[in-house]
Amino acid sequence: MAGNSFGTIFRYTSWGESHGPAIGCVVDGVPPLISLSEPDIQQYLDKRRPGQNRFTTQRQESDTVKILSGVFEGKTTGTSIGLLIENEDQRSRDYEAIKDSFRPGHADYTYWAKYGIRDYRGGGRSSARETAMRVAAGAIGRKILGDGIRIRGALVQMGPHKIDRAKWDWDATPDNPFWCPDRQMAQQWEGFLDGVRKSGDSVGAVIEVVAEGVPPGWGDPIYGKLDADLASAMMGINAVKAVEIGAGLTAAALTGSENADEMRMKDGKIEFLSNNAGGILGGISTGQDIVVRFAVKPTSSILLPKKSVDTHGKEIEVQTKGRHDPCVGIRAVPVGEAMMAAVLADHMLRHRAQCG
Amino acid sequence: MAGNSFGTIFRYTSWGESHGPAIGCVVDGVPPLISLSEPDIQQYLDKRRPGQNRFTTQRQESDTVKILSGVFEGKTTGTSIGLLIENEDQRSRDYEAIKDSFRPGHADYTYWAKYGIRDYRGGGRSSARETAMRVAAGAIGRKILGDGIRIRGALVQMGPHKIDRAKWDWDATPDNPFWCPDRQMAQQWEGFLDGVRKSGDSVGAVIEVVAEGVPPGWGDPIYGKLDADLASAMMGINAVKAVEIGAGLTAAALTGSENADEMRMKDGKIEFLSNNAGGILGGISTGQDIVVRFAVKPTSSILLPKKSVDTHGKEIEVQTKGRHDPCVGIRAVPVGEAMMAAVLADHMLRHRAQCG
Amino acid sequence: MAGNSFGTIFRYTSWGESHGPAIGCVVDGVPPLISLSEPDIQQYLDKRRPGQNRFTTQRQESDTVKILSGVFEGKTTGTSIGLLIENEDQRSRDYEAIKDSFRPGHADYTYWAKYGIRDYRGGGRSSARETAMRVAAGAIGRKILGDGIRIRGALVQMGPHKIDRAKWDWDATPDNPFWCPDRQMAQQWEGFLDGVRKSGDSVGAVIEVVAEGVPPGWGDPIYGKLDADLASAMMGINAVKAVEIGAGLTAAALTGSENADEMRMKDGKIEFLSNNAGGILGGISTGQDIVVRFAVKPTSSILLPKKSVDTHGKEIEVQTKGRHDPCVGIRAVPVGEAMMAAVLADHMLRHRAQCG
Amino acid sequence: MAGNSFGTIFRYTSWGESHGPAIGCVVDGVPPLISLSEPDIQQYLDKRRPGQNRFTTQRQESDTVKILSGVFEGKTTGTSIGLLIENEDQRSRDYEAIKDSFRPGHADYTYWAKYGIRDYRGGGRSSARETAMRVAAGAIGRKILGDGIRIRGALVQMGPHKIDRAKWDWDATPDNPFWCPDRQMAQQWEGFLDGVRKSGDSVGAVIEVVAEGVPPGWGDPIYGKLDADLASAMMGINAVKAVEIGAGLTAAALTGSENADEMRMKDGKIEFLSNNAGGILGGISTGQDIVVRFAVKPTSSILLPKKSVDTHGKEIEVQTKGRHDPCVGIRAVPVGEAMMAAVLADHMLRHRAQCG
Repeated sequence: MAGNSFGTIFRYTSWGESHGPAIGCVVDGVPPLISLSEPDIQQYLDKRRPGQNRFTTQRQESDTVKILSGVFEGKTTGTSIGLLIENEDQRSRDYEAIKDSFRPGHADYTYWAKYGIRDYRGGGRSSARETAMRVAAGAIGRKILGDGIRIRGALVQMGPHKIDRAKWDWDATPDNPFWCPDRQMAQQWEGFLDGVRKSGDSVGAVIEVVAEGVPPGWGDPIYGKLDADLASAMMGINAVKAVEIGAGLTAAALTGSENADEMRMKDGKIEFLSNNAGGILGGISTGQDIVVRFAVKPTSSILLPKKSVDTHGKEIEVQTKGRHDPCVGIRAVPVGEAMMAAVLADHMLRHRAQCG
Repeated sequence: MAGNSFGTIFRYTSWGESHGPAIGCVVDGVPPLISLSEPDIQQYLDKRRPGQNRFTTQRQESDTVKILSGVFEGKTTGTSIGLLIENEDQRSRDYEAIKDSFRPGHADYTYWAKYGIRDYRGGGRSSARETAMRVAAGAIGRKILGDGIRIRGALVQMGPHKIDRAKWDWDATPDNPFWCPDRQMAQQWEGFLDGVRKSGDSVGAVIEVVAEGVPPGWGDPIYGKLDADLASAMMGINAVKAVEIGAGLTAAALTGSENADEMRMKDGKIEFLSNNAGGILGGISTGQDIVVRFAVKPTSSILLPKKSVDTHGKEIEVQTKGRHDPCVGIRAVPVGEAMMAAVLADHMLRHRAQCG
Repeated sequence: MAGNSFGTIFRYTSWGESHGPAIGCVVDGVPPLISLSEPDIQQYLDKRRPGQNRFTTQRQESDTVKILSGVFEGKTTGTSIGLLIENEDQRSRDYEAIKDSFRPGHADYTYWAKYGIRDYRGGGRSSARETAMRVAAGAIGRKILGDGIRIRGALVQMGPHKIDRAKWDWDATPDNPFWCPDRQMAQQWEGFLDGVRKSGDSVGAVIEVVAEGVPPGWGDPIYGKLDADLASAMMGINAVKAVEIGAGLTAAALTGSENADEMRMKDGKIEFLSNNAGGILGGISTGQDIVVRFAVKPTSSILLPKKSVDTHGKEIEVQTKGRHDPCVGIRAVPVGEAMMAAVLADHMLRHRAQCG
Repeated sequence: MAGNSFGTIFRYTSWGESHGPAIGCVVDGVPPLISLSEPDIQQYLDKRRPGQNRFTTQRQESDTVKILSGVFEGKTTGTSIGLLIENEDQRSRDYEAIKDSFRPGHADYTYWAKYGIRDYRGGGRSSARETAMRVAAGAIGRKILGDGIRIRGALVQMGPHKIDRAKWDWDATPDNPFWCPDRQMAQQWEGFLDGVRKSGDSVGAVIEVVAEGVPPGWGDPIYGKLDADLASAMMGINAVKAVEIGAGLTAAALTGSENADEMRMKDGKIEFLSNNAGGILGGISTGQDIVVRFAVKPTSSILLPKKSVDTHGKEIEVQTKGRHDPCVGIRAVPVGEAMMAAVLADHMLRHRAQCG
């Protein structure tokens, strides 16, 4: 209700600030008897972990997750799962200088306007550090969904540079620091992002997340639609400014006759001849791949000076000298996957509740 | 929970099918002592009402709303408000022919896959007729927000034809059948849409909704963000495939230095020098205009034949002969405004709950 | 959230005032393909209907329910079910006289204190007339639960007169105007209540509701316990002041050794040797009968004058001359049954969601 | 939803098992700028802490709470508050012997029936150890309510022995190990409970919790009534079997004329001449003291052997040799106070949301 919970039946609630002692979450509604151990979660946290290459922030966090409850002898018990990650590399002093400043593009001003107080150290609660808990909860979501459903994400645009979709190769994504499915573009991005980084600037990105194996029938019309919940999930990730399902924005320019995904029978099953719908019609899954894209704005923390004001109403210039990602979109890939997993796990249980 | 409610504190729950006896909703959480009468709601329903010109469906519905509870002597009492609209022009026989067919692009197949049953008459519950209740609830949302907040929507793209933003004139929107803020483009669209209609096809659109006067501080991070709730609200409208806040998708191509909305003081108040954020940072309103855009796919009901299958697994061709909108995006304008009002009214009360 | 909805997955939202044009509710989360028609609901409304004998209010309401959505060709479709009952016998003028008075024991003062406005006609929203919608929703709850679960209620105490539990005969309950399972006591009550009625006073009662056939395993610890939800459901019924599960209040006086429900095996199944637990342990059903009791205070509307004040702060005497029940507890029997059905249907679906 | 969260706007979610590494909770919806530190919470945990005298379990737990987030420089920030208590005295081996047994009166069987798995160590999640988090969250609830609202609990009945209400002295409650407000009865209970303890048996109790200073107007009819929420809150506490508001069960035996709380004016304010309503009418607070009582069954863990079965369907005898409370009702006093605080804090914010 007050904003720190996500989901309805499969539901997690997170807490923790960028520079507090720890971050964590409680994951509720997990079916019993699912095998779950820390490595099941850790593998996804490791994908999101900072400091792995020169293209992400140099903050050193092992992000080691501990399961504190809800699992007994290697299996979920159906009770709430407490997860905890200790913060290790808090350089709070880095932030003393900007204590009273409102950094442009950040939530500094809005938190202050809303609450009349803010933890300025690294963005406090508004820090993207919170996304570690999304990834952890999403890992549990994947266990609920089981092996029949595969969720993968990729960076499909960095700054103005889009991948060539004809060259899409899922196997390429772990081979480059960008989760780029187009090997050629990945190389190009390397030079491009080095340039951005050295100029003290940052750049935006577009991420695509695809879920295969989702059966038809998941999603609760009219206000719990699968696409509406995915839109909320993705738009809620730090720095996201747009969400598309299937053809997305381009659907506006199509005619009905171009846009319609025609159907035929194949081996006794319905087969769609295209997927402009992105696997969702009327808010309910069609059985096709669920396809979601979201745009991440450029990192707001940049070395270049920008005009701002402070808490005292004084006009200032802000330059961010801390450790930051030149393209936060990269680390948003595992976060987007996790949110897809969280939404689908919830809808799997919601569908089972009503329809058996 | 099962999908027919929207909002948390300001919350409405709708019911009704396209060809049932009536549609309605219950609006809960409305503050007491707000003056409210049927015309307050009717004026917005009239904007959405079908059959007003040749560019919308010819179904004749007066959409006359009745307030059945929650208002006493012209004022809200704080108890639940029951609203009801009787369906008048149900030609259910029109649908006998497509009883067993899955119309491409419609929710026919997914409802059937989910529930094992569907009311095929005019799409049943999945019909855009339900959006009348969104408009009605949104009208009450506006009353909660008061006169200080102005919500307006406009069609900014029809098919491939975008408006010229330099020519934006809010006063133009009621003067053409498209809610187009660019008078010149409105004329162009007229010819374009006539062509689309005559060809038996349909076309998509992009709608922009702007809320002025929202104070800074509304929105509940981390999972009840104002932008996430708006994304869910808009993506949940029938036929919507993409949602953008502020710079939206284009933010991906910007650098951090281009994207940052710089701040200065003006008359003792903070002033932003641009609004790429669309009035929201960290999920909380900045005090600037809230700017949301969403893309509507082309109407799925078209005269042109499309390949499909039926409930018996037989391959068929589907042609829709009923009364339909060549561009449903047009009637989505008042619906988008209503969803903006519903989200803002809810967040106004949520903010007041926590922050006084 | 704002109080007009009950349940989580099986969830209904009600609206309407005692003297408005109609009352109604929306029932959401109903599984599809359940056969449902108006008589399924009407039979339970008829049990609660006023004016059936001299021991209930003489207000004449047929309480004819209409299903306006969510059912197609005799079966539920999984979408929201709109129900409506028109008010027929509104004598609002009866209430002009008490327009500004706060009737002792009623919600007049508290509604006014909370909302600053109240619909004084027959108690407005606070009227027990709203319980018709509980009964209607409960009837749908029973359909979800199916024939394997039987829910029955009985009046076990009227004023100071308790039934003899040794004489309990479920078949007796429909044979007397009190739903009394003890035929002898029913006769005694007749004289007793006639006396109360003639004296212009009223009297309280205790109702017991029993659900047979509930399988072990329903209920969500720690805060969605089956007994906690039943307590909320029953305490929320108008005029209820106490709720007990199983041994209830008497459990306080027992020793652990007396209270423990021992277990043995019978025909390969667990059998409990007593049911002090009332069928619930740790918030989860044991498979035994679910036993709930609740106490209803005496009707607050009485002919005898009582001291009070009015909205202007003037000291007054209040005498209620309208049509009222000398023992509202009687009509609370079908309401208690309905709330049991609503809670169980919700927990059936909640259990299925998490545990399959 | 899946049961580990309590409240709506002021909402906490707990996790942890009796013999896991730690227990904790996340408290959400707390208004910003409230001064909060660990001692504010610790003082209430200390009241509930085991091992303080011979009448409570000898398990040694310091129950030291840590605030891990949501507080910055001594003040709440409006973001989620993470709380953690490490378990110190886990003698899990004590429980090896009863690993497969279903202890009568405990949740062993029902958890196993529901989930197909259970953490048998000290009751796992069903342990009353979880109530520490209720107390912690309740302490924060008190801070939200402020000094104007005083919440106090007392044991008013132990086994068959009730206090003499004429001797009620709030100052006496901290002076005896039972929170008994009747000094004479406290002495009598000492001997009584020693006898119970030595016999290897246990005994039930009744607790009364009173909140002073609650203004009129809190509570959300029809399904979020203050009394319904209190009933849920108290019934959900481990071992509770009955909840009463005001006159409670005795209201059933009263006449309307006896039960009515008459009103008069005093110093320009409404004054009630009695409080049978327990401070709540129509689900909304009247401004009088809120009075709730609840009955706790005798501790199910007793030395005396009881008939049971095990997970293999074998008939067994169960004797509990662990460390246990002869009367768990004693430690339920601070838990009841905490639940009162949690419900009131939530309703304070809910009221503010809708009514400003």
